[in-house]
Amino acid sequence: MKRLVLGVQYDGQGWRGWQTQPSGDTVQDALERALFRFTNQEIRTLCAGRTDAGVHGLEQVVHFDTELNRTSYSWVNGVNAFLPPTVAVQWAKELEFDADDQDQFHARFSARARTYHYVLHNSRIRSPMWIGRAGWVFRPLDLGLMQQGAAHLLGEHDFSAFRAAECQAKSPVKHMYEIQIRQQGELFVFTLRASAFLHHMVRNIVGSLIFVGTGKRSPDWMAEVLSSRDRSVAAPTFMPDGLYLAKIDYDQKWMLPQPAMPLIPGFLSLLA
Amino acid sequence: MKRLVLGVQYDGQGWRGWQTQPSGDTVQDALERALFRFTNQEIRTLCAGRTDAGVHGLEQVVHFDTELNRTSYSWVNGVNAFLPPTVAVQWAKELEFDADDQDQFHARFSARARTYHYVLHNSRIRSPMWIGRAGWVFRPLDLGLMQQGAAHLLGEHDFSAFRAAECQAKSPVKHMYEIQIRQQGELFVFTLRASAFLHHMVRNIVGSLIFVGTGKRSPDWMAEVLSSRDRSVAAPTFMPDGLYLAKIDYDQKWMLPQPAMPLIPGFLSLLA
Repeated sequence: MKRLVLGVQYDGQGWRGWQTQPSGDTVQDALERALFRFTNQEIRTLCAGRTDAGVHGLEQVVHFDTELNRTSYSWVNGVNAFLPPTVAVQWAKELEFDADDQDQFHARFSARARTYHYVLHNSRIRSPMWIGRAGWVFRPLDLGLMQQGAAHLLGEHDFSAFRAAECQAKSPVKHMYEIQIRQQGELFVFTLRASAFLHHMVRNIVGSLIFVGTGKRSPDWMAEVLSSRDRSVAAPTFMPDGLYLAKIDYDQKWMLPQPAMPLIPGFLSLLA
Repeated sequence: MKRLVLGVQYDGQGWRGWQTQPSGDTVQDALERALFRFTNQEIRTLCAGRTDAGVHGLEQVVHFDTELNRTSYSWVNGVNAFLPPTVAVQWAKELEFDADDQDQFHARFSARARTYHYVLHNSRIRSPMWIGRAGWVFRPLDLGLMQQGAAHLLGEHDFSAFRAAECQAKSPVKHMYEIQIRQQGELFVFTLRASAFLHHMVRNIVGSLIFVGTGKRSPDWMAEVLSSRDRSVAAPTFMPDGLYLAKIDYDQKWMLPQPAMPLIPGFLSLLA
């Protein structure tokens, strides 16, 4: 028995999010159908971070167990042959599987941190080129104010104020390791790295930072929202279009062939 | 009477190209429907460069005549309110109209040059993030060889070898002012500027340069293809996904509010 780990990329437009649904129109459904066609076996996958409808995955990580013998090359190209254009396996890694091993790799439980990017197009006029790929704000945004506001979120906090009602996480306490906000002309990229994220947490934080960036709220208001632990105090959930699950951090001992940081097409220079 | 000039951006995916069709599913049809809803008048537009199905417009230029009085701001936002997300007017400019003036502005006949970008993703594994936005080549491409090959096309030539059978241009002789090929990691951007382009000319040139870039043909083969004037000698027409009509050059006297060079999302640093 082996534990197979895959890096999966997808354009979230047109999918009802990651997690399998009876309707069958989720990314997980597409992946498991492709795995079935490639292996002729029913394979159930476990992922590192479930994404919502319309949210993109630059590098989602999943695992499953199998007794099949295939090379990494074969897993990647074989499964991709049965996937639609908007989903593709980027790499595969075979690990030893030992059911008695407490330290067995697990896509979700072995994850040490998650990184999301949120891309925002800030322009008086909407651009068709960013539809489904970036959020849009037409009021001018101030980078410095948003950076000041974001700084309040660093460290370990109860993030209940940014948590969706339907969130299933055991605890609202997460550790925010990093929030970077970068600007290049009309584009802003928010990069958030945390131990884990609550449901809608990135989109709620970005929505609140937009309130700060447009001057509707002060940077210190972010600290007030955080300490309130009250979802009704924060801004509404911002649109999914600009959200990208970018990277899952694991211990190097697993030797996963992850690139340093998968790039969002269009932000090469910003994220390089 | 005034002559209105609009800068129009569109994502070509899902449209049957620019030019109006009885089916009504072209960008021109969408624009003219929006103009009708905004003005309550039947307006026929003329464009600078008709694009094929799947080809994008960063800045298509169109004109039409009207007796209506609206500010530029009103034309842009009013028409955009009736356009689908994949099409948007970026700017509007009102010019004097005098039917007797030989030098009246015309979106097509006043154009001095056209610029197209072709974006290519060169990677062993396909990326869902580039679907519909870039061509894909999985064999490694050599930038230097393609640049050598492209140099043969500079200047005034009969481009019949790169011309589609259904092309309606009066003459196959065009002046190629510039061909730049830039690489950033897995991405290549071809930028071609010419007096005008024949039908499928960019896609046929890019297809042929890919033959050179993969080593299937030598750079000098481009000169052979060109001088043959025979379409059957060149490579097949490459996919439309990566093609962007980027810029139409006009005399500065018209004072059109065109940006220096509209950027392709994702290539900010390459084209800056």
